[in-house]
Amino acid sequence: MKSQTLSRRNLLIASGGIAVTSLATPSFAVEPSIDPLGKDLIFRTADPRNGEPKLSKLVQSWLTPTKHFYVRSHAPNPQINVDKFVLTVEGKVRTPLALTMDQLKQLPRHNLTATLTCAGNRRSEFNTEGKVGGVQWAAGPIGNAKWSGFALSDVLRKAEVLEEARHVWFEGLDQIQRSNAVIPFGGSIPIEKAMVNETIPGAVLADQMNGQQLTPDHGYPLRTIVPGYIGARSVKWLGKIVVSDKPSPNHYLATAYKLVKKTDPIDWTESGPIYRYPINGAIATPEAGVTVPAGRLDISGYVLPTGLMNSRAHRIEISTDNGVTWVAAKVTDGNSDFCWQLWKARVKVTSRTTSLLMRASDNTGGFMPQRVAWNAKGYLQNSWYRLPIRVS
Amino acid sequence: MKSQTLSRRNLLIASGGIAVTSLATPSFAVEPSIDPLGKDLIFRTADPRNGEPKLSKLVQSWLTPTKHFYVRSHAPNPQINVDKFVLTVEGKVRTPLALTMDQLKQLPRHNLTATLTCAGNRRSEFNTEGKVGGVQWAAGPIGNAKWSGFALSDVLRKAEVLEEARHVWFEGLDQIQRSNAVIPFGGSIPIEKAMVNETIPGAVLADQMNGQQLTPDHGYPLRTIVPGYIGARSVKWLGKIVVSDKPSPNHYLATAYKLVKKTDPIDWTESGPIYRYPINGAIATPEAGVTVPAGRLDISGYVLPTGLMNSRAHRIEISTDNGVTWVAAKVTDGNSDFCWQLWKARVKVTSRTTSLLMRASDNTGGFMPQRVAWNAKGYLQNSWYRLPIRVS
Repeated sequence: MKSQTLSRRNLLIASGGIAVTSLATPSFAVEPSIDPLGKDLIFRTADPRNGEPKLSKLVQSWLTPTKHFYVRSHAPNPQINVDKFVLTVEGKVRTPLALTMDQLKQLPRHNLTATLTCAGNRRSEFNTEGKVGGVQWAAGPIGNAKWSGFALSDVLRKAEVLEEARHVWFEGLDQIQRSNAVIPFGGSIPIEKAMVNETIPGAVLADQMNGQQLTPDHGYPLRTIVPGYIGARSVKWLGKIVVSDKPSPNHYLATAYKLVKKTDPIDWTESGPIYRYPINGAIATPEAGVTVPAGRLDISGYVLPTGLMNSRAHRIEISTDNGVTWVAAKVTDGNSDFCWQLWKARVKVTSRTTSLLMRASDNTGGFMPQRVAWNAKGYLQNSWYRLPIRVS
Repeated sequence: MKSQTLSRRNLLIASGGIAVTSLATPSFAVEPSIDPLGKDLIFRTADPRNGEPKLSKLVQSWLTPTKHFYVRSHAPNPQINVDKFVLTVEGKVRTPLALTMDQLKQLPRHNLTATLTCAGNRRSEFNTEGKVGGVQWAAGPIGNAKWSGFALSDVLRKAEVLEEARHVWFEGLDQIQRSNAVIPFGGSIPIEKAMVNETIPGAVLADQMNGQQLTPDHGYPLRTIVPGYIGARSVKWLGKIVVSDKPSPNHYLATAYKLVKKTDPIDWTESGPIYRYPINGAIATPEAGVTVPAGRLDISGYVLPTGLMNSRAHRIEISTDNGVTWVAAKVTDGNSDFCWQLWKARVKVTSRTTSLLMRASDNTGGFMPQRVAWNAKGYLQNSWYRLPIRVS
């Protein structure tokens, strides 16, 4: 009556079986040796621009240099004349606004360091169970940067939000071709998040990244930064804010970025928008597939705790024997709200080691599960990270 | 560098560690020996009436006798004069309706067998990690019954639903005291689910259960049955249907029945309503804590596959050695959409066995995970089921 030997696919389906999702190595749609915009990224698609850094480069520093910061776009970068740029604020407000950059710059400046992560980070790992749509990301669409700009709550207070306000919509100035329509990238956040005004505001309208003016790839001249939420809520090339009694009807809030098994109307409707990110992490060095000698091996990686204030990694663990025993990794960098933490570990590998496993939990109850349910769009892949290696 | 010995609490927090959630045995608020309404249930609260059967009784038959069918109420059973009863249908419809029971009975009758499960099934198991609010359910608030009534889609077609319809609200005739207001129990389902009209309609307005008129505990004279969705969407004592362009603002859809870590406004808003149930299961016999001789042991239980058409258990497994090895269980009853399946297994227990573990997966990709994230309201506890036993 013992379970029979499981096929690879059945093992994936069987609950609790050791996850066999290998680090997928998707074929790169485009990998230009020199990006015309100077980014040092692996481009998964060139048009629109979607690129992620090599993991070994990603963890060289706690702050991610802009050239190594992933780029996620749905259309070509819009050409914006900053002298004519106006941010409009409308909807459920007493005083609709049209703010130039100069007017925005009269607001108090807020600096914050926050990690952005694509909801599709590690998406390609889902393909071992069933094909998922979207950009075939490995574990690189994540980065930690210094942002500087203006608190959304300050702008909303200026506009005098009405009692019935429940959600704040963001609309980009990009133009995305979808079927026969052209739409901006958009999304919304709950009004409670928008009005958070602690050390770190609930959302910042940023004009600077890492001490420089935003680059076109990252939303010049103005973008939203929503710490703790998936990257999709941090709308780039921000042109319009709408205060509403309901969530944004924009495709990227109302339909996309949900956990669904199928992309039927009923599946989309049954599923709510993703806001917060769950804890996630990856092994960044050594490289996947590398051959190393038996014995001690130094490894490193990142972990991003759940998108909540005060969330920090509680336990980061590595296994070299497929999950039978675990060794603790040590945080080397990062003790800041809404930011990732870098870690190192020294493990022992033997001729029987075929991969390294990594898992983590945080102090808010978040954890990387052994396996996550497959979803059609490949979001929130945060199961134990597996890095295949060879030991000589 | 090996992980140190983990405390009980840390083991729960550590991702992927063997789950140590024991079968919690909450103290019963009320356990009347004879229920005035003749139910053979363990009442977790007497007012309102919230009772679940003993698990050994629950799995005696694939169809659950009404007296063993869990009762979940938020207020006293309303007194309804069926001769004056009218179901109103309003909102985004061309023809608002007010239907007497006699008028409803002129619609085609639909019979369906479907399992209802409380979203709080197995809630008490969360308490080992942190206290959860709500009725302290064990694994009994689930039951499979024959329902008979009228397709919601037939009623909606009669009312002529307008183009902008997106959700269908249900309101009960019960009166729930909440702070200073009295509200009915309510909820809504997406219009796509409401209009499903296959062998099993997306929702049925039932006046019969197991071949009899509904009892007051189960929603007499009319209740909603929404196969595949958590029990809370199957509103009892149904009095009003509203077709709308948005989900119901009723507390039990808009706020309660969501997965949240805290019960703050922002946490509620960030989280969408729960509609479908995920696969779940339990060991029903032997009883928790029983002493059995070493050797062969026959065990039984139930599994409810994910709330989707064609979903069936794919693999049901038992472990007597804390998850190191697993033995397959066999489905004995149940091959019907939106219904549970009963199973049996024969396992070997030794003096080292301290508990039985059960896990299952289904053919739609659903699985019972080793551990689920704690949530403040204790919903959707579907981790591996653990039954403590003693072996002599």
